[in-house]
Amino acid sequence: MKFHVFVFVGVVHLLSLNSGKAVYGNGISQRTFQEIKEEIACYGDVAKAIINLAVYGKAQNRSYERLALLVDTVGPRLSGSKSLEKAIQIMHQNLQEDGLENVHLEPVKIPHWERGEESAVMLEPRIHKMAVLGLGGSTGTPPEGITAEVLVVTSFDELQRRAPEARGKIVVYNQPYTSYSRAVQYRVQGAVEAAKVGALASLIRSVASFSIYSPHTGIQEYQDGVPKIPTACITVEDAEMMSRMASRGSRIVIQLKMGAKNYPDADSFNTVAEIIGSKYPEQVVLVSGHLDSWDVGQGAMDDGGGAFISWEALSLIKDLGLRPKRTLRLVLWTAEEQGGIGALQYYQLHKANISNYSLVMESDLGTFLPSGLQFTGSDKARAIVEEVMCLLQPINVTQVFRAGEGTDINFWIQAGVPGASLLDDLYKYFSFHHSHGDTMTVMDPKQMNIAAAVWAVVSYVIADMEEMLPRS
Amino acid sequence: MKFHVFVFVGVVHLLSLNSGKAVYGNGISQRTFQEIKEEIACYGDVAKAIINLAVYGKAQNRSYERLALLVDTVGPRLSGSKSLEKAIQIMHQNLQEDGLENVHLEPVKIPHWERGEESAVMLEPRIHKMAVLGLGGSTGTPPEGITAEVLVVTSFDELQRRAPEARGKIVVYNQPYTSYSRAVQYRVQGAVEAAKVGALASLIRSVASFSIYSPHTGIQEYQDGVPKIPTACITVEDAEMMSRMASRGSRIVIQLKMGAKNYPDADSFNTVAEIIGSKYPEQVVLVSGHLDSWDVGQGAMDDGGGAFISWEALSLIKDLGLRPKRTLRLVLWTAEEQGGIGALQYYQLHKANISNYSLVMESDLGTFLPSGLQFTGSDKARAIVEEVMCLLQPINVTQVFRAGEGTDINFWIQAGVPGASLLDDLYKYFSFHHSHGDTMTVMDPKQMNIAAAVWAVVSYVIADMEEMLPRS
Repeated sequence: MKFHVFVFVGVVHLLSLNSGKAVYGNGISQRTFQEIKEEIACYGDVAKAIINLAVYGKAQNRSYERLALLVDTVGPRLSGSKSLEKAIQIMHQNLQEDGLENVHLEPVKIPHWERGEESAVMLEPRIHKMAVLGLGGSTGTPPEGITAEVLVVTSFDELQRRAPEARGKIVVYNQPYTSYSRAVQYRVQGAVEAAKVGALASLIRSVASFSIYSPHTGIQEYQDGVPKIPTACITVEDAEMMSRMASRGSRIVIQLKMGAKNYPDADSFNTVAEIIGSKYPEQVVLVSGHLDSWDVGQGAMDDGGGAFISWEALSLIKDLGLRPKRTLRLVLWTAEEQGGIGALQYYQLHKANISNYSLVMESDLGTFLPSGLQFTGSDKARAIVEEVMCLLQPINVTQVFRAGEGTDINFWIQAGVPGASLLDDLYKYFSFHHSHGDTMTVMDPKQMNIAAAVWAVVSYVIADMEEMLPRS
Repeated sequence: MKFHVFVFVGVVHLLSLNSGKAVYGNGISQRTFQEIKEEIACYGDVAKAIINLAVYGKAQNRSYERLALLVDTVGPRLSGSKSLEKAIQIMHQNLQEDGLENVHLEPVKIPHWERGEESAVMLEPRIHKMAVLGLGGSTGTPPEGITAEVLVVTSFDELQRRAPEARGKIVVYNQPYTSYSRAVQYRVQGAVEAAKVGALASLIRSVASFSIYSPHTGIQEYQDGVPKIPTACITVEDAEMMSRMASRGSRIVIQLKMGAKNYPDADSFNTVAEIIGSKYPEQVVLVSGHLDSWDVGQGAMDDGGGAFISWEALSLIKDLGLRPKRTLRLVLWTAEEQGGIGALQYYQLHKANISNYSLVMESDLGTFLPSGLQFTGSDKARAIVEEVMCLLQPINVTQVFRAGEGTDINFWIQAGVPGASLLDDLYKYFSFHHSHGDTMTVMDPKQMNIAAAVWAVVSYVIADMEEMLPRS
């Protein structure tokens, strides 16, 4: 309650700079914030109806059950794989059968990489078969593998200082996990930096908040002009063990075999469905998650949950017989994990219509019990979103944080469109992220119900308000 | 503090039944509990010295560092393996170099089983390579494997009800994890019960409090007269997925290959070292952990930690120049995981001396931050142990729980010797137990320091008190 009072005071202050009248959304509005607040408050009953249906009513557990059926049926859905394309076809049919509108597929060319067989065996100081997962896009090794001594470093700085030792070796990164964004640099850039100093391969400590000897894969990026060396992630446990061994002066030798191979780009699709707006059908609130995943686990959390609460948002609104003024567009992205490939092509195809995008939403950080909404946009838009989130008081998810983001919606956000993402327990998220452990076991139907209710209320109300969200 | 007041009142009540004089330990004592309390209080300075050395002094992190060196060097230590025998030889040398007394090895015949290559692939309803770990003592499959339809059950009761469906199938147990002791019945008895109803093999949901797609192995027991079918553990995730699939009516087919083989018993040793008692050298306080482990991870937690805080207890006492009246005997058991094989042979060899065992201690539930001590013994002995634990007030580990136990000390406890074990975070313990994740990464040097201090104070004071702990 204190939080909202505080927010309101702040907003009044902002508006007072404009003599009590504010210009929202490309100058189309002259309404006071008080008028907007009153408009939002009118959605209280709609919000309660959505919450009741999602959390307590006949739709409860639906997004979980739908997701379980898909991911049990097709498994993980790597870019370029048959299982991804099967999932897209199933979803296309699911959305049609659900009675959504303008259900269609938008063609995209996506990367096709396969890991093949892979292994890493420590030969010295003792024989130890290591868990390993090649990183996305990595080249393979020769069939006989790469057998080389190991150089363990904990940072790029240490690698630079010890550059003369790296030549001809396998560089093992044992970077600490202080945050995902810091640690992931080693996964993404580790091979390039190791190659620059003459290493033959690089093995990266999995970027994970918690481990039970679980390797976590992900994308990595080669650089033009730098040799493309094979690169894989190993477990936190093995990285730490080799770090201890190296600090004792032990010579470590590893044999790395990777059958990884890059193939020509494959055909894929972004999957789209809508509830067409009653008054401004050309205006859009976009809700989304990505349908592709890594090729381990089931891709249930990353990003099955995000994709399925997005679908659920439209289902809930449709089931209640609601039709917002603006079009609610569901997009299930393809090839997010390869760097938002599907989303980039969508952006290029649709950016001419950018002035009609009121809000872009993506859930790609888990659909556990939501802490709240992350939002990027003008202060005025934030004030409106904070009011909308007050409608979620019945399920106690009202907070609005900074930095709404998502690989797939960042193109729009960077171009000025307000963006929102769902925030939850990131320690839990990064325990399972990109690992064999990303399965339905991680998911909780009751938490998904609440996440879907948040997603539906926010997207519906923003899509139905008199005016688009104001931009900076 | 309240807790101890409560305990004291209870004890006074007990003693008052005996006119203020109590008979402790085989009737040798006529001292009042007040006298014993005063005796224990005199150990306050010794306890502080042990704590200071272990937690803040030059011995801090020593048990962790010693353990890391051993388990990094030899890896996991399965009964019958060369790495276990190497570990025993290293420890024999370590204990001699540490200056302990009567360091020797006591020969034991132990089981020799090897898992060989193993795999489980779901062929229907979709291809899915499953993580699998054969269970200790399991037979293997034919080289071509066993390919059969799956029957998923959640309990032995359900298996009985559906017995006609089990013939010729692979039984998958998806028992819930309500507690270790309940769930582990499925690991131990699952193959026998499945074989009784004609199953070809059994796959058991790993007995684990938490999972990142981590299989957890362990011992299983065949029964005479029941066919010995191959049996392995699978992940919580796969057990739950197959349960969902089965509930949807999907036909599930698995190909299971196990190269597991039982070999003739192998030669091994319990490893023993002592600080010989100054006054009653024939009387013993036994501190212990087991040196063997499963063949995955590093056996750092189960039971490297327990073995190494037990060694550390003697090191700390020796470093402080202390020599208790009774002998402090360190035993590092062999082949605990196969059912306390080393401990049984030790018991048979030494039980003639049972009246001289004051207390048997084993740490085999983790050496994280201790919650306290588990204790089994007479009320009078418990009252004494509670007083001893008050000496650990400086590190806030004073609680005494019920049910001191340990596979290796239970032979003595069942014969009436007081027994103590270390209790800590069992949720954490069973997250890593018998899995690839049982590595040094789980261990915390500061927590091991505290565990070692508890272990040293309890064992030293009980070994040095005027009288042995009273029995029932």
